[in-house]
Amino acid sequence: MTKKTIALIQGDPAGIGPELLIRLLSDEEVRAAADLVIIGAPEIFARGEAQMGVTIEGVRHAPLEAPIEMGEEEILHLDLRVDGIGDTVVGEVSAAGGRSSIEGLRNAFERKQASEIDGLVFMPFNKGSMHMGGNDFTDELGFAREFFSLTTRASEFNVANGMWNGRVTSHVAMKDVPDLLTVERIDESIELADRTLKTAGYSRPRIVVAAYNPHAGDGGLMGDEEIRVIRPAVEKAQKRQINCVGPLPADTLWLKVRDGEYDAVVTMYHDQGQIAIKLLGFDRGVSVLAGLPLPVTTPAHGTAFDIAGQAKANPVPTKNAFTMCVNMANNRAATEGVVATDCEGA
Amino acid sequence: MTKKTIALIQGDPAGIGPELLIRLLSDEEVRAAADLVIIGAPEIFARGEAQMGVTIEGVRHAPLEAPIEMGEEEILHLDLRVDGIGDTVVGEVSAAGGRSSIEGLRNAFERKQASEIDGLVFMPFNKGSMHMGGNDFTDELGFAREFFSLTTRASEFNVANGMWNGRVTSHVAMKDVPDLLTVERIDESIELADRTLKTAGYSRPRIVVAAYNPHAGDGGLMGDEEIRVIRPAVEKAQKRQINCVGPLPADTLWLKVRDGEYDAVVTMYHDQGQIAIKLLGFDRGVSVLAGLPLPVTTPAHGTAFDIAGQAKANPVPTKNAFTMCVNMANNRAATEGVVATDCEGA
Repeated sequence: MTKKTIALIQGDPAGIGPELLIRLLSDEEVRAAADLVIIGAPEIFARGEAQMGVTIEGVRHAPLEAPIEMGEEEILHLDLRVDGIGDTVVGEVSAAGGRSSIEGLRNAFERKQASEIDGLVFMPFNKGSMHMGGNDFTDELGFAREFFSLTTRASEFNVANGMWNGRVTSHVAMKDVPDLLTVERIDESIELADRTLKTAGYSRPRIVVAAYNPHAGDGGLMGDEEIRVIRPAVEKAQKRQINCVGPLPADTLWLKVRDGEYDAVVTMYHDQGQIAIKLLGFDRGVSVLAGLPLPVTTPAHGTAFDIAGQAKANPVPTKNAFTMCVNMANNRAATEGVVATDCEGA
Repeated sequence: MTKKTIALIQGDPAGIGPELLIRLLSDEEVRAAADLVIIGAPEIFARGEAQMGVTIEGVRHAPLEAPIEMGEEEILHLDLRVDGIGDTVVGEVSAAGGRSSIEGLRNAFERKQASEIDGLVFMPFNKGSMHMGGNDFTDELGFAREFFSLTTRASEFNVANGMWNGRVTSHVAMKDVPDLLTVERIDESIELADRTLKTAGYSRPRIVVAAYNPHAGDGGLMGDEEIRVIRPAVEKAQKRQINCVGPLPADTLWLKVRDGEYDAVVTMYHDQGQIAIKLLGFDRGVSVLAGLPLPVTTPAHGTAFDIAGQAKANPVPTKNAFTMCVNMANNRAATEGVVATDCEGA
């Protein structure tokens, strides 16, 4: 199998991203698993090295626009020039930090369009910095949807200890959720979960769909979304041979997921999944931006300004994000039927 | 301190209730902690003894209407006569089983009105049986509210490993929740949490109030219930010296509760608490019906028809429910300031 090319973005310069990137590159397994392209500010790469007290060997710097050509044992660093990036202070949001995140993402997506990269892993961004840096989107996914002019569904999946969670609605007011729960949207979310987990190596992902109302509506006594939209969507997906069940009451469902009965949960709203998956160890997990033209993963935690620069950030989620991205890039090319990947502690 | 009188109801005869009751009565600590009055069908008491293979010593049977007068070392069994109760089959719902549950509750509440008992613990009821038996209420709490003509707030609290959860709305359709979230209702729920935990022995309960929208609405970007109703309710309660904070995002909030930062969570809707508290071990926990004229507790699990009659049901939740009920009955009489009770495994 030819090595895939994975792009890496250092994340907000004021957070733990720069040190996590250096820690990742210090890992021989990582360097062996893929061809690596850093898209970032050289000043911040150097900052990460200083924070970790190591120097990464074999890094070749090139201009941001340079073609991606990899030498043997080499890491390519595409130098993003951002005014004031060197002046950013650890622990403080900044427009320069935000701009570097946005421009890194943009360059990675352009590289994908040019077929130069196969996947992307980014260290945590900071929403405050990105807003100051001129990003008008709620999140990375909004930016990606716009960039790729997507009309199909894209969604963030959260993965903790082998449990995947995707959601039908996300950053919207709770009172607006009922109107957004349509057969079409739910069916698309199930479809996306199936496709995403297959790309991640599950040959026949076991998907469970959450109910919306307490006790799954108790036969229509407490809300009818289960009868009117969720069950029809599940049946529609089942007819396409997707291995899904539901709707199941959201509270008992998570016990079954924890006990390994299902691989993925499709939830109806943000907290329905987030309450559970955070309790199940998601702070050590991985987020996957699914439904994009390339696999994109990131560690689940944030920029952690409070411990930034102290070389004590947990490297496991980043390693897991990387491993998952490489697997997904490999599986996109390969035929179906690969066994599920096994991520340490994620 | 004079011993309190605690009524015990055996629960649905087809479930694990009868054996749990016998198991509870076999415990010397239980017999020493309070004067015990069983309100139930004698056939089912005998069934429980047969299931457990033990005979409970010192039980005096009396008619359902008999006055409660306790002899030394004696358990009083008030005999509830229900047609067909002896024919109920383990693992099957029945009208007779439902009627025995309803009539047991009714007698216990009458005994409270006559100042004959100080608390009630019931083994799991079965909603299907109770419906067949003629109960028109959604749950025990509805029955109790009607019986006592309550106009003040009553609510179920779930307790797992020392974490208490009460909710502003419960068995209602999710689409109806926003209209039910008023300052008054939320304030009453906080007040009830404070009062209930004080009765349970917490001198100054630490209460946290959950947000309704994802990320607590993010400053009004995703819903305004936090700004419009939840925060004003929290501030109102704080002015009365109630030790409460919020609204906090529901997903990260539960991590803090798990880590011991708070004693009680007031949630806005059913699954917001149930998803978390089930993952946190509530199947081994206790439910408290709060806001009634007497403390009422029950093990958190259901009738477990699948393992009924096999003497293998876990007795810990029932013991915890009993201990909590006795503590609450004692603390109702005592002055405030008792330290928090410590329940084994609950």
